[in-house]
Order: sequence, then C-alpha cells, then structure tokens
Amino acid sequence: MLFEIIEGGVLAAEDFVAAATAAGIKQDGVLDMVMIHSRRPAAAAATITQNVFRAAPTYVTQEAVADGRAQTIIVNSGNANCATGSRGMADARRMGELAAELTGVAVDDTIVCSTGRIGAFLPMDKVEAGIRKLAGMLSRRDPVTVARGILTTDTVEKMSTTRFVVGGKTVHLGGICKGAGMICPHMATMLCFITTDLAITPELLRSALQEAVTYSFNCISVDGDMSTNDTVAILANGAAENEPLTSPDDEGYAAFTAALNHVCRDLAQQIVRDGEEVSKFLEIQVTGAPDYATAHELARKLATYTLFKCAVFGGDFNWGRIAAALGSSLLPFDPAKTTITWQGIVAWKDGEPQPYDEAVARLAASATDHLVAIDLGAGEASCTYWTSDLTPGYVEYNTH
Amino acid sequence: MLFEIIEGGVLAAEDFVAAATAAGIKQDGVLDMVMIHSRRPAAAAATITQNVFRAAPTYVTQEAVADGRAQTIIVNSGNANCATGSRGMADARRMGELAAELTGVAVDDTIVCSTGRIGAFLPMDKVEAGIRKLAGMLSRRDPVTVARGILTTDTVEKMSTTRFVVGGKTVHLGGICKGAGMICPHMATMLCFITTDLAITPELLRSALQEAVTYSFNCISVDGDMSTNDTVAILANGAAENEPLTSPDDEGYAAFTAALNHVCRDLAQQIVRDGEEVSKFLEIQVTGAPDYATAHELARKLATYTLFKCAVFGGDFNWGRIAAALGSSLLPFDPAKTTITWQGIVAWKDGEPQPYDEAVARLAASATDHLVAIDLGAGEASCTYWTSDLTPGYVEYNTH
Repeated sequence: MLFEIIEGGVLAAEDFVAAATAAGIKQDGVLDMVMIHSRRPAAAAATITQNVFRAAPTYVTQEAVADGRAQTIIVNSGNANCATGSRGMADARRMGELAAELTGVAVDDTIVCSTGRIGAFLPMDKVEAGIRKLAGMLSRRDPVTVARGILTTDTVEKMSTTRFVVGGKTVHLGGICKGAGMICPHMATMLCFITTDLAITPELLRSALQEAVTYSFNCISVDGDMSTNDTVAILANGAAENEPLTSPDDEGYAAFTAALNHVCRDLAQQIVRDGEEVSKFLEIQVTGAPDYATAHELARKLATYTLFKCAVFGGDFNWGRIAAALGSSLLPFDPAKTTITWQGIVAWKDGEPQPYDEAVARLAASATDHLVAIDLGAGEASCTYWTSDLTPGYVEYNTH
Repeated sequence: MLFEIIEGGVLAAEDFVAAATAAGIKQDGVLDMVMIHSRRPAAAAATITQNVFRAAPTYVTQEAVADGRAQTIIVNSGNANCATGSRGMADARRMGELAAELTGVAVDDTIVCSTGRIGAFLPMDKVEAGIRKLAGMLSRRDPVTVARGILTTDTVEKMSTTRFVVGGKTVHLGGICKGAGMICPHMATMLCFITTDLAITPELLRSALQEAVTYSFNCISVDGDMSTNDTVAILANGAAENEPLTSPDDEGYAAFTAALNHVCRDLAQQIVRDGEEVSKFLEIQVTGAPDYATAHELARKLATYTLFKCAVFGGDFNWGRIAAALGSSLLPFDPAKTTITWQGIVAWKDGEPQPYDEAVARLAASATDHLVAIDLGAGEASCTYWTSDLTPGYVEYNTH
C-alpha cells in the first residue's frame, strides 16, 4: 500500500488547529460550529454542489478557492443559509469576514459552509459570538470533537486519516465529513473537510480532489436527493516540507492520490452507512460498460430505485426490480448480454432468468451488507457505487 | 364542454364485450384475468413503456398495433411476465394466439398485457384455462367487474367515461386502468384500456393517443420508478357510424380529443390518488418555462424528490425542499426570477424568501389536496403534474 492508515482526522497534518462549539443555532447545547485553520498559507481546492438553488456560503467558498489559496474554514450546522436571498448572502460574507479577521488571514482566504434547514435566516448574533469563541479555542488537541461539530442528523462522527511519504518526507492527510440525508451525486448535504501538510501546487491539488470526489462522493446515494450546500474542501499547507508536487509525474504524487482517494471513499461509505434510519449497506458494481457515464448512470438508477430499496429493506430477493431499475435508465444496454448477480447468486444471464434456491436467496437477502454486480458485456468501463435501503424510519424521520 | 361524462367504462361504446375471471394466478379467488373484445374490426393504437427491460407481452402488443388494427385484448394481473426470457416470450405469444382463436380474430389483432411480479414464469395451465373461460363469458353487462379484473395493489377500480357528438352521431369513449406502484412517467406498471365506437383512421387515433398520454400518464409519479409493463391501448370500432375522422381539421375531432384527454387525465389522477399507502394528492403546476421539456422536468424532479414527499406526508411546510428539488434538476433556470407558491402561500419571490404566517402555513400543509405552483418567469410554456406523498406505509408495503 502506498499509504498507512492512522488517527487524527483534520488535526493529523502539521500546523493545523481547530475547535468546535455549541453556539446555540441548534437546541440543547449541541455542537453546531467548527473552525479549522492552517497556521501557514495553504493551497486550497473545493468541489461544490451543482444545485441551481445552491446556498449563499457556497458562493463565498467558490470565491475563496478561486485563487487556489485558503487558510481558514468556518462551518455551522443547524441552518443551511440557503434560499435566503440577499440577507443570506450578506450573512455568509459576514461569517467569512469575521473568521478572517480573527484568524489574521485575508477575507478571500476563508471558506464558509452551512448545513441544516433550507429557507431560514441564520441567527447572526449567535453565529458571530460562536466565531469569536472558536477563534480563541483553536488548538491541535481534539480532532474527534471537531468531527462531531459538523454533524447534523448523523449518529457517529466520520473521520479518515492517512500517512504517506513524498520525497523522503512524512506527509499526513485526514478528513472529516457529515451526511446523512439529501444524499445523492453531484454533492449531497454533505460537508467534507480535508487537511494535509503536503506541499503541492493549487492546480494539481484541484485536479486530484476533483478525481477523488468523482469516484467517491459522486458515487453514493441515500435518498437520491441532491442538496444545496454540499462542499468538499481541502487545504494543503506544506508543513511536511517536501519538495512541492507540481506534476502528476512527480515522485510521491501516486502515494498522495492513493491516500486522498482512500480518505474520500472511506468517508463517502461512512456517510451511506450512517444514512438516516437506514438498515442495509449496498455496494453496486457495474462492469462491462461501454463508458464510465453509462456504468455510473445505471448504478445511480438502481441506487435510487424506490422499490428496489424497499425490497432490500424487507430482505426480499426481488431481483426483478433490479431489471426494472436498469431498464428505466433508458440507456441502450442489451438485456441479452447483461448478467445480474446479487450476493453471488446469478439471477439473470444470457437473456434468461436463472434458477436458484429460494431458501438460499432468502438468507442472502437478509444480510446487512449487500453486493449487487451488473455486467453489461459491452465494454471495459466500470463504476462502483454505494447506497442504502429505504426504510419506513427514514420517511418518519423526514416528515419535519 | 365538448363532451358529457357518463357511466360504462370500456362497455359504454357499442359492439364491445368484456369479461373478468379469477384464473388462479393470484391467491384466494381474486379476479386476475380480463378479456375485452370488439365485435367488429377496430382501429387500434398503444403506447408502451420505454423501459429497456420491458416485459414479453409488450412486444406482442407492439406487433399487434403495428398495422393500426386490433380487436381483442387479453390481460392478466398477478404476474408481469417480465425478465422471463424466451419462455416468457413464448407464453405471451401463446396468450395472444389462444385469445385470437377463441374470439375469431387474426393473431396479430390481439393485444396482450401482464402486470405483477417481475422475473417469475406465468402458470400457463391456469392462464390458458382462464382465457377459455373468458371467451365464453364475454358480454356487455358488467363494466365495473371488468375494471376490477385488472387491478393489482389498487384499492378501488378506476373508470372514466364520456359521450360526445361527431357529425351528428353519438360517440362513446371510456377507459379503465390500474396503478398503483412503480408509477412514473414514460408509462408506469400501469395498464389502461380505452374503447370507443368512433370511426377514425389508425394514424389519427395513434397521434391523438400519444398526445393524450403525454399530458396525462406521462405527468404522474407515485414513487418515481418507471415500470416494465406499462401499456395504454385504445380500440376504435366505428360502431357509432360517424363519417370516419381522417384529419385533425375534421368536425368532431376536437370533441374526440377533449374527451380522450379528459379520460386519460381522469384515470391518471385516479392512479395517483390510489397510490400504494399514500395519504396526500399534489398538483404541481410549472409555468413561465422556456419550453415544455423544462417545465416537465422541473415538475418531475419535485414530484420525485424524496425529502419533499416526506415533508408533505408530515404536514411540514418545508418549502426549502422545493427549492432544493428544483435546483437539483441542474436545469439553467434563474432562482431570482422564480416564484414558489404552495397552497396559495408565496414562499420565494424576486430572489428572496417571503414572510408568511407560520400557523397559516401549518394549516395549509396539513391538507389532503395540495397545489404547488412554480413560475419561472422565463417564457410561456407550462406543465401540470400529479403526485403523492411518500409514506412509511408505502415502504412497508413494498418490502416484498
């Protein structure tokens, strides 16, 4: 392996500090604000939701990373600051300005993120007090509390941390993220922050992040609902003092991308496993596709097909709903060349349903972890996608 | 109005006969087969699911209507005969051949439809016995029992019937259909049969049906899941003895299409209202769109956005989820020109959230029938779409 798995989340990398606090945006003293800060200038990149109705802070973040540099991240949960018009935009800018001022960085070096209910104004008195408090609390001490501070409906904190070597120097890379509803490709109501002490150019950092996100966060779905606030941001501050990476051909770039891809996939899968009230975890592998877009769309279609997700919840080996879901993509694949395998049981092949033992299928369908493999027999491209079942509890949970 | 609403379903039109029976495909003596037959040659048209994995009988039906003529319809519920390979195709053909033989029509004048579980073989001994029995039972007596015979998980039969005048002759047009899960545009697990004694050319009948389906069955969603078996078929046998309609400019064509559109929209809305375990009915009106495709896609996106449907179930006036749903379409509409109105309450306008009384909104959101109006301020095109809420009961219901 090109990297080791360690502990530490966003505080594993040198010269990063962070803090979490309960600013009162949420009830009952629950943590609802986090600040992450690099003590030295850092290369920065972010991928942001493509939702047309995206939230005010995503515009601030987009501006912050436009020059490839950022140093401070300020986050609140409990309120998405989305569909809040001009007042919401002013509030997002104010969050960035205050965080910049208190951490001594330029206004355009501050990333702002919000998550929570859409269409409500931020309680800015509480938010401003929270930012002031966070700036005075920054330390390298407690990465787990920082990871908890960005959660909303998640039940557990989500961290993934790695260590690898670039040019003889030890580099750390760790991330934290939140789910857990409005989860679907093109970024969910999902925030992810990654820090590394790698030295790297902003351009190379951006392309590595984009690729990692494509095969991780853009390959998960809990409920099929794309969100308005999703952001994955990475800061790389160079404290490892490696010779800066400037090209994909540089020694050490492979270790970096392997570590980054691992962290992103690990966090993405943690989001699915902690989806709101879900009970099953599914990996969908589409292989033999003519191109990646086809493989991804078929996997996505299956991952969001309501009736299939209901059957998985119920432990019903109803593979016919897999066929129906794939077909509903309207993509020109050939059922006669397609093989559908669920938990190792081949259900459809060579244009014919395949015999299987009902008792074995029932047992297989009752598992908590599922593997559904679809081979299209039409090429070399593939996509791996992760999703959950759909449960009555999810619906109950989201009635307010 | 260009037509009157009457009773009679598929037996309102002259020279049609039909019957329903319990052939034993389903348990407990529940009706599961229907035959509808025109005593005279009829023009015929059908729209069929675009699902790539579509069922065997849809191929038979497609061949049957290819020449614009058909005379007998044979239907079973309880088994979709989908993803059944070569044996399923042979079974579908056998159903058509036997029904044709027993009703004295050509093999290619027989429409075959199945609905039910996917991936299981038809019990052909029971199916053949059922067809024989139905052929001996054909009558003009009981349209309600015929409407019941095609139901699966529906709780009530769905009929819509009209009468209108073409060239001084009285014409009848009536339909029946079934829902109630796997309901989404491009044809759901939805079967609809319409009969009329109108005289009309097959070409004109086909274009009228296509248009009626576009603005009715292709504008509904219960669960967002496109099915494998959906078919809407119409037979027009000319028993009204009007001068045959041959052009959209003919006198009476407007009355015919008004009646046909009414029947299709009425049946489509009945399907949504009887969706599996749903508790709310929503009409979504998208106006001010640059084109119909944009209006339809935005309406569909909202109608299938899980979290919005959960909020509707819970009676939560969570209009932010409407914004999130619209934005997730990735269509290039402008939020600043968009107005979101729910139950008459303007929630978003001119790029700003609008103040409203929380108590009034709570009361509005608790209603059984909902109207959500989205105006894009970007053109003249519009789409009206119907959908339901998503309930824990729906998920429970579909775990097997």
